Formats: sequence, C-alpha cells, structure tokens
Amino acid sequence: MELLVSVVMGSQSDWDTMQETVWMLEKLEIPCEARVLSAHRTPDALDEYIRDAEQRGVEVFIGAAGGAAHLAGVIAAKTQLPVLGVPMESKALSGIDSLLSMVQMPGGIPVATFAIGKAGAINAALFAASVLALKYEKYADSLRGHRKQQTQKVLAIGDPRQAAKK
Amino acid sequence: MELLVSVVMGSQSDWDTMQETVWMLEKLEIPCEARVLSAHRTPDALDEYIRDAEQRGVEVFIGAAGGAAHLAGVIAAKTQLPVLGVPMESKALSGIDSLLSMVQMPGGIPVATFAIGKAGAINAALFAASVLALKYEKYADSLRGHRKQQTQKVLAIGDPRQAAKK
Amino acid sequence: MELLVSVVMGSQSDWDTMQETVWMLEKLEIPCEARVLSAHRTPDALDEYIRDAEQRGVEVFIGAAGGAAHLAGVIAAKTQLPVLGVPMESKALSGIDSLLSMVQMPGGIPVATFAIGKAGAINAALFAASVLALKYEKYADSLRGHRKQQTQKVLAIGDPRQAAKK
Amino acid sequence: MELLVSVVMGSQSDWDTMQETVWMLEKLEIPCEARVLSAHRTPDALDEYIRDAEQRGVEVFIGAAGGAAHLAGVIAAKTQLPVLGVPMESKALSGIDSLLSMVQMPGGIPVATFAIGKAGAINAALFAASVLALKYEKYADSLRGHRKQQTQKVLAIGDPRQAAKK
Amino acid sequence: MELLVSVVMGSQSDWDTMQETVWMLEKLEIPCEARVLSAHRTPDALDEYIRDAEQRGVEVFIGAAGGAAHLAGVIAAKTQLPVLGVPMESKALSGIDSLLSMVQMPGGIPVATFAIGKAGAINAALFAASVLALKYEKYADSLRGHRKQQTQKVLAIGDPRQAAKK
Amino acid sequence: MELLVSVVMGSQSDWDTMQETVWMLEKLEIPCEARVLSAHRTPDALDEYIRDAEQRGVEVFIGAAGGAAHLAGVIAAKTQLPVLGVPMESKALSGIDSLLSMVQMPGGIPVATFAIGKAGAINAALFAASVLALKYEKYADSLRGHRKQQTQKVLAIGDPRQAAKK
Amino acid sequence: MELLVSVVMGSQSDWDTMQETVWMLEKLEIPCEARVLSAHRTPDALDEYIRDAEQRGVEVFIGAAGGAAHLAGVIAAKTQLPVLGVPMESKALSGIDSLLSMVQMPGGIPVATFAIGKAGAINAALFAASVLALKYEKYADSLRGHRKQQTQKVLAIGDPRQAAKK
Amino acid sequence: MELLVSVVMGSQSDWDTMQETVWMLEKLEIPCEARVLSAHRTPDALDEYIRDAEQRGVEVFIGAAGGAAHLAGVIAAKTQLPVLGVPMESKALSGIDSLLSMVQMPGGIPVATFAIGKAGAINAALFAASVLALKYEKYADSLRGHRKQQTQKVLAIGDPRQAAKK
Repeated sequence: MELLVSVVMGSQSDWDTMQETVWMLEKLEIPCEARVLSAHRTPDALDEYIRDAEQRGVEVFIGAAGGAAHLAGVIAAKTQLPVLGVPMESKALSGIDSLLSMVQMPGGIPVATFAIGKAGAINAALFAASVLALKYEKYADSLRGHRKQQTQKVLAIGDPRQAAKK
Repeated sequence: MELLVSVVMGSQSDWDTMQETVWMLEKLEIPCEARVLSAHRTPDALDEYIRDAEQRGVEVFIGAAGGAAHLAGVIAAKTQLPVLGVPMESKALSGIDSLLSMVQMPGGIPVATFAIGKAGAINAALFAASVLALKYEKYADSLRGHRKQQTQKVLAIGDPRQAAKK
Repeated sequence: MELLVSVVMGSQSDWDTMQETVWMLEKLEIPCEARVLSAHRTPDALDEYIRDAEQRGVEVFIGAAGGAAHLAGVIAAKTQLPVLGVPMESKALSGIDSLLSMVQMPGGIPVATFAIGKAGAINAALFAASVLALKYEKYADSLRGHRKQQTQKVLAIGDPRQAAKK
Repeated sequence: MELLVSVVMGSQSDWDTMQETVWMLEKLEIPCEARVLSAHRTPDALDEYIRDAEQRGVEVFIGAAGGAAHLAGVIAAKTQLPVLGVPMESKALSGIDSLLSMVQMPGGIPVATFAIGKAGAINAALFAASVLALKYEKYADSLRGHRKQQTQKVLAIGDPRQAAKK
Repeated sequence: MELLVSVVMGSQSDWDTMQETVWMLEKLEIPCEARVLSAHRTPDALDEYIRDAEQRGVEVFIGAAGGAAHLAGVIAAKTQLPVLGVPMESKALSGIDSLLSMVQMPGGIPVATFAIGKAGAINAALFAASVLALKYEKYADSLRGHRKQQTQKVLAIGDPRQAAKK
Repeated sequence: MELLVSVVMGSQSDWDTMQETVWMLEKLEIPCEARVLSAHRTPDALDEYIRDAEQRGVEVFIGAAGGAAHLAGVIAAKTQLPVLGVPMESKALSGIDSLLSMVQMPGGIPVATFAIGKAGAINAALFAASVLALKYEKYADSLRGHRKQQTQKVLAIGDPRQAAKK
Repeated sequence: MELLVSVVMGSQSDWDTMQETVWMLEKLEIPCEARVLSAHRTPDALDEYIRDAEQRGVEVFIGAAGGAAHLAGVIAAKTQLPVLGVPMESKALSGIDSLLSMVQMPGGIPVATFAIGKAGAINAALFAASVLALKYEKYADSLRGHRKQQTQKVLAIGDPRQAAKK
Repeated sequence: MELLVSVVMGSQSDWDTMQETVWMLEKLEIPCEARVLSAHRTPDALDEYIRDAEQRGVEVFIGAAGGAAHLAGVIAAKTQLPVLGVPMESKALSGIDSLLSMVQMPGGIPVATFAIGKAGAINAALFAASVLALKYEKYADSLRGHRKQQTQKVLAIGDPRQAAKK
C-alpha cells in the first residue's frame, strides 16, 4: 500500500496526543506512518528520513513537538511538500511556547499550524485529508462521510439537560 | 482562466496585509481572487460566496481577520476544502487575539493557521502553492523556483556588516 | 409558558458550567431552554434554531463555547436580539483563548461577554434578568430578592476565622 | 426628553474613545448623557450620580475605564440595571489589564464587557440599543436600519484591490 | 487592646490564603481583625466598616480579592490610610487577573500590591509591620527578630542534598 | 532639613518616569533625595548607600527598575524599612517583565509594588505620604489637601463633551 | 578533588528540580557542589559564599530561583565568571515570572538563561559542560559520549506505536 | 588572527540589533565574524558553515533570530560548543515569541538565552567573554576593565536631577 502521510513527533511522550492523528487518518483510510525523531537530538536522521519518506511517496508531513518546538519548521526547511504542525501541551507553559514556536514562522517557509494538544492532532489529520481529497476523490468521500457523522453526533444531543441524565 | 484560490478578508483595512498573499500567488502564477466579506456583518453573502466559489472551481480558501477572528472558522464550517487562516495584527492586542481565535479551533473543523500579519500572509500563499503542487505539477515548479531564489537571496548577503554598507 | 432566554452551548461538555446559568434563570423564574449546537459542526441547524427561537419569543440569547469560541459571535451575526457570551475554561489555555475570541468582536456586532467559567455562567443569567427586568416588572422583583439574599449571605460571615470553624 | 443611557468614564482622556459610544447612540436616536466620574477619586459623587440617574429614568449604564478598571463593577454594585463595560486601551499593557479588571467579575454582580477601545465603545452602544429595543419598538427599527446599512457598506467593497484604488 | 491592622477579604474562600496574613501579624504581636466584605455584593456595609475601623484606630488596611479584584482599590478610595492588596490565585487565570486589577491603579489612589497567593499574604503582614515599626519601636523589634530567624532557617539548610535526606 | 524618602533608580533613563515621584513628594513637602544606583552594575555602592541613607534618617525607600527589575528586592533584602517598587515600562515587553520581577517576591522580604510607569511613580509618592502620615500629622494634612484637590479636578469636568471643547 | 561548578538555589523546595542538574554534572564527572542560599533572606551569606567559591576554584555558577527570581542576577553582579540561570516553575504563574526575572537582565550583567523547570536544570548542566569542555578536553569527551547516547535513545524508538506497546 | 566567536543571524534586518554584539566583542578584543544564514531558508549552507567555523577555531556560537526563532537551537543540534541565543524583538509580539522559541529548548540540547533585543545582544557578547576568559587570561582582563568602567559610569551620575540638566 502506498504511503501518503508521515506523522513525525519529537518524543515518545507526544504519542499520547498524536495517536489521535493516526486514528483519524486510519478512520479516513489514508495510509500513514508515525516516527519519533527529534530536530535537536537526531538532526541527521531526521534529514535522511524526510528525503526517504518523500521518495516513498509521502505527500503531507505532520510534525508535532513541544516547548521550543522546531520540528515542523525544520521539516519545512527541507521539503516543499505541505507541512502541518501540532503544538504539544507543554508542562510549564501549557503549550503557548509550542504554539508560538510553530505558528510564527518567518515569511518564506510555511508551517500550517493547528490547536494545542488533541484538538490540533485531530484537525491536522482532517486537514491532511482535505488536502489529499483535492487529488484523490476517495478521500473527499471519506471526509464527507466523517463530517456528516460528526454533525449528526452534535444534533443527537439536543437538550444538554436530558443528555446529562443518560 | 480557471480560479484556484479565494482570498477572503473581513475588512478593507486587511488589504494592506493581504495584498502580500495575492502578490505571492500571482508571482507563482496561481489564479486567485480577493473579496471583502465579513462573518459577522455579511453572514448570508459569505455563505453564498463560498458555495459559488466552490462551484467556480476554487480549491483552497484563505481567510484573514482580526480581533475575534471568526472568518476562517466560519468558512471551514461551510466547506470541506482546505481553509487557511491569516491572523491580522489587531490594534490593542497585536494579533494575539486574532491568532487564538483562529488556531484554537475545536476538533472536527480545521483551520490551517499561519503567522500574525505579513509573514503569515506570504506563507499562506506559499502553503496554498504546496497544496496545489501535489495535483498540478506546474505549481511544484513555480514553488521550486521561488524557494531557490529565496535561498540565493539570503546567501548573497554573507557578512551583514558589508551588506549594511551597501 | 412563554420562552424568554435561549442558552446555546457548543458541546455537551460545556453543560457542567452552563447548568449554573440555567439554575439561576430557574431560580429567578425566567423561562428558558438549553441546546447543544455548534457554530462549526452544525452551522445550518444553528441558523435554523436561531430563527425558530426568535419566532417562539426568545428575547435574549446566551452562547457558551471554548477555544476558538465563535458561537456567540455567529449567533449575534444572525439576530439583533441581545447576545450574551460565556467563555468556557479551555484545556490548554484556561479560557484566555475563549475569552478573546468572544470579547474582541469588531465594531458592528456586539457580544456582551462575562467571566471565564462558572462565575460568567451565573452572571450571564443575572444580566439576562436585568435586561428582562426593564420590560417585565416581576423579574425586577426576582432580581431584587436575589441580590438582597446574596448581600445577606456575605454579611452573615463576618469574621472568617469564626466562619472557618463552623 | 427622557434619558435612557448614561455613559460614565473614569477620566477625560477616555472621551476620545467613548465619543464613539455617544455618536452611535445619537445616530440610533437613543437619548443619553455622558459624565466623567472616577470610582477611586470621586466615589461619593459617583454613588450620588448613579442614584440620581436611575431616578431620572436611565435604564442602561455604560462604564468605561482603563488599567485597574473598577468603574463598571462599582456601578454594578450600586444598581441592578444592566451595566455595560468598555475597557480602555491602557498605556503600558494595551488594555489587557482593563479587560481583565472588568470581565472577570465574580459571580453575583455582572458587567457585560465589550472589546478593548473603539470597537468596544461602538458595540456597547449597539448592545444598549438591542436591550432597549426589547421594550421600545422604535429602537428595534433604528437598529435594523443601522445593521442593514453596515451590511451594505461591506458588500459595496467587493474586490479589495479595486477598492484600494479608489 | 488597641486595633492596628484590618484584614478584609472578598469571600470566605480567600481565608485559606489570608490566614497566613493573620498568623504572621499575630506572630509579630500586631493587633488585627479579619472581615469578609465584598466591594460588589456589600458595598454599603464595606463603606461603613471602613469608617468604623478607622475610628477604632486601624492604621493599615489589607484587602484581598480575586478575579476582577476591586476590593483594595475601593477601600483606598474611601480612606487615606495605607492600603495593601493581596491578589488571590483565581481559578481560570491563576491570579494574573487579580494582580492586574490591583496593581494597575491609576495615579491618585495607590494600592501597595504584593505577590499572588500565600507569598503575598505573608508579605503584606511583614510590610504592615515595617510601616507600623516606624512609629512603634516594639514592632521594629518583632520584625528584627523575625528576619533574623528566617535568615537562620535558610542558613541551617546548607547542602540541599543532605537536607533532602532528613 | 531631615531626609525621609530615598528614591533610587537603576538607570538615568528611569528619571523621566521617576521625576513624577519626586515632584509629588515635593508637592506634599516631604523631604527626599534621588539616586541612580544599579543592583547589578554597582552592588557594593548600593549596599553602602542603603546603610548610609538609613543612618541619615530615611524612613521609606522607593526603588524603580525595568526588565529583570531586582533593585527594589535587593534594597528590601538589606533593610527592614518599608520598600516601595515602581516597575518601569520596558522596551520590548512594556513593563510586564518589570512588574513580575518586583511584585512576585517570595514570602519573607516584601516589596510594595505599584503600577507600571508614571501612574506607579505618582502612587509610590502618595503611598509613602500615607505611611509617613501615620507618624507625622503634617503629612496627613498635605495628603488630605491633595486628595481633596484631585477630587475637585474630576468633578470640575462634568460632561466630557463640553470639556473637550475647552 | 577540585571544584568546578557551584549550584545555588533560593530554597530547599527547588532541590526537586535542581537535583537534575547535579545528577547530570555527576554523570559527566564534573565536580560540583550545591547550596541553598537566598538573595533576599541571606544576602550577606550569599556574598561571602560567592567570594569563597571563586577562591576554591569554581569556574561556573548555576543559580536557580522562582517568582521574582533575582538569585542568578545577584550572583552575576558579584562575579565575572559565567552565571547560568534556571527559572523554577512557580505556583501561580507556572514560571513565566521566574523566566522574565532572569532572562531580561539589562545590558552589562549577563545571566545565561535556560528553560523553566527540569528541562532547564538538565540543560544548565550540559551547557556548563560545553563551557568547561573548551578548557578541559576530558569534559568534551564526556559530553560527546552523552550526546551520542541521547541520539541513540531517540533512534531506538522508531515507530511510537510499537514503542507504546512495550 | 584566530577566530573565536561566530555571530549568526537569521536575516539582515537583525543586524541593527546584533551590531551591538559585534561592537562589544571588538571592544573586548575578541576575534569574531558575523554571518546572515537562515535555519529555514538556507539549512544546508548553515550546516556547512557550522562545520567549517568549528574547524576554523570558533569556540562560541551566538545565534540571533525572531518569531519562530529556531536558529540557535538548530546550531546547538549540530555542535557541542556553547551556543548563545539572542531573541529579536518581533513585529507583532515584541519578541515574546522569539524568546520562548529559544529558551524553552527541551532537555538535551541547551541554548543559553539572553534578553530580547539590544540588552541581550550586549550580554551575549559579555557572556561569551566570560566563557573565553576561563581559558584565555587576557579576556578576563578585558572583561574586568569593561565592568570597572561600567560601574564608574553609573556612579558618575549620582543625582539624576542634576544629570538630567547636563
């Protein structure tokens, strides 16, 4: 099976958040792989991985990191494929450091940034799907299905007082 | 000529920043159009515009707004095409309000967010190009050319002391 | 019984906070209803609900949402009735994102914003009462009663050292 | 002529911002008056003014202050009429101090807070109109007219590139 | 016994923090009393209490409140005795709102502000002592004793590794 | 003439702000002196100055500094007289760094902190007066006069619209 | 054995974080000692300790403190040896106060600042090693070994999904 | 002449700030060179430069960047020499983004961070001198001279009122 999305995270501790990305990509049947690679502790292996992943057909990179979160920016410096960034909720500063380190990229090398933590992890997957859907009709269908479902889920609640009793 | 990118902004005063997006798209020869439409003051016209733009072939939306910047999120609620957000530098809070109102979208409806102000405006265009490049080879070429050029520009500087004298 | 206040929240998880609003409205004997509807995941149902609620006699809307909290602003874009906003305490950023996404509305479409979390939920109810009290004398009475009571409660404490022993 | 809205500000320097409130109220033909009174420097005169204004028929108070902005909260402690707050853009902290000092009122005494600076000043007037419109049909009409007008203004722009040339 | 310091707090829930103030004042043998009174919910009782306390000989007021923390400022508006403020750690914003609402008083009415939470509660007591020590020699002695003791406590630790084992 | 207040600032550039302190002290006829001394660049001279000033009769210290503003804390570590701190408006961070470096003193060594910039500079002088007024009746009189005057000034404005025309 | 690094912290409660510094220095076989000394509560003992440590051969100081974290700056004012600062995670403000109080030192007296909390504690040790490695070849070797090891650790993870199962 | 310090900045626009670093290094007679190289736009040239500089004898790197400021971290990932970081004052967020992107490096790869803007630029040079002074006695002398001079400069001011008149 061809590979389309690569999900790279700076540390194993990011997996708890980033499994949401992988789960959503799998739900949408988009082939993906996940790797732990650090822009700071393994810069050479990261370089090599990016080149290799691109050759193996990856079309979208998702980078997740916390604190001084350089990973997504460093990936974007090495490829011109779309790079999506998910800022991790950091211990002291709750991810505001991760967010600013990602989203404030200087003009020239973009990182498409999503919300801090799990909401961002889910949305990076959905956004990757919307990008791939432009080219691969079947992902447009998966996405349409998913969005219909999520609309239904909200509508099914109605009155929160009743829902709370269930 | 086909239309690929729609650049929507909440107010005419955003144009000073967002012309950077349009200039970059034009430089990369990506057909685009720009509109002033407000999520709050013209919600119905916005709805209609999104539907119409999608029918006219738009594949990527870029939404720019400041303060309680709902525009990109409201567009993303109405289409499943990729929606990119550029937070405007706001008067009192320098755009931190615009940034958080865009990037912190709840799980389910993603907005790919870029830096506050002109850096974000340029990067939204470059990111749109990287998305379209997956499908249209010619934009991969434009992007490759642009990135080579921007690398050359930095390398041409060398010693900033010398450059400052020029 | 006529309906006067509609309390809309973006997700069932907001109910824990927003039940304070409903409890206070009920304490003041102001007829209200509560709904879960999302500006992003159910935009069309939200539109329809606003129109319908207005026809059923709603005079005040209260919107509660977290993160990129667009709900109250989107309601305010669709009605000219008073719209009150309660920013939810968000996971990573403690609600500062929710607050700024609500209160920083651009000139033209106001959202009356209250404190993050339960204090705001209570105060939105009390403020709705003060608005309705202008027109319906009986709510002026309920409000007067409530405020007298809350003053008495504080005065009953006196010395916190003694109170702590009880 | 009857008086309906009282606009109180903590210092003459707030007038530059708060004249937007008065202009908008006048545009909507809502009778109002403006006063400079400080919660800190003139507490007794403020008390007296609130009591007096209420007797002269004021139905909505708008309080504007900057820094440790207590004015609106202090008014709200003395009346149960709706109190609206406009946080002034402060010198060092750009109004984030004014905003938090207003919006974070503890449960029990609400202040309906609007955006920092001129956007908030305009919106406080529009919100006051929406409150009064519940009781006085003619203000519902003024408001309807104003909102139609402001929608037209945005729609008249269309393409920002063309508009910029005018 | 004469009364010298009055410790006022906005809510019984502040007592957990403010008992540190009372404990320290008692340790330094400075006669004090504590009261729960709210600037917003009991404005008249607060006014009366300030006047009365002043007549009973209070020379320093300490005001503690959280969120939109107006209490100390409102006391300072009513007396020209030194007013000290202790910002409470608030639920959502950790006390940054309480701090700014206290410390950012406009020129004319000062509130001497201390750290958020227990450190501030202790320091308000110590500062009150330093103020009273100018006039009452015995408090200069208590303070001297306390500071010597606290220096000894730190010096007794020496190597933290050894201390951690005890 | 005896000396009562010492105003120390970390740099000559703070004088523009701190002259407000000196002007107000002079207006209230409180004898004071001003010195530029840095906790970091002149630690020994600062130590010596504090000891000397104390011997010359200083009863209140006011310390002003910006950025990592340690000056007031370092003075407070060396004397048990009341130490007041005025955070300077810093270049990049507008004084939020100065404020936190002053107000967040750990329990044990208090610094009474005032607003960032000129408002804080004025209030430190007024607060010093309120402290000295406990012991010296004449400063209670000066302070009473000043506060009456400042109340009159606000009351003289009345309607800001009229005042703006003058 | 000669002493090269002195680790000073403002309170015993900082040890939980700062033992990471000591552990890392020991792992790299760099001789160090740790002391609890407060810039505010023990200024004279701190002065004496710095002079003494310098005479006993210390070449690098590491200062750790929280809140208004003056310790590292005060050390840097007394020695021209390299001073490294580790901001402690503070209770209310999560260490943003500690960080700004350290890093924003005015021009003239530098403090090399690292991340808030444990990451900073580890990095201060590693940075001390990189400084000493310029002069003592053996620490260059220890550092090289440590970095190789940490790279291997990340590379050993590979796929986080697999790693999570272990 | 041997080369000891390399000053790298992400853009020519950083030179206005970073010339302070070069001026100070030159004043202290420490041989240095300056280069414009971007972690994002010229990653390969940066890699090569770091390797080359190290071979030409550089012992300390100083990296300056703004916004999502990855430059210093990326250098630190490639060398184990001491890396110093100077956060640039960014347009919208005044450098708080640059600061957090630098200082919050995860454990393992340290960047010694200094103040935002010119104060940081000066201090990075002084800190580099303190590091080199451990190995090269002559820089200990230069540094001693500089610090004496800067102490004298402050002491020469004395009374700021007099100084302001000059």
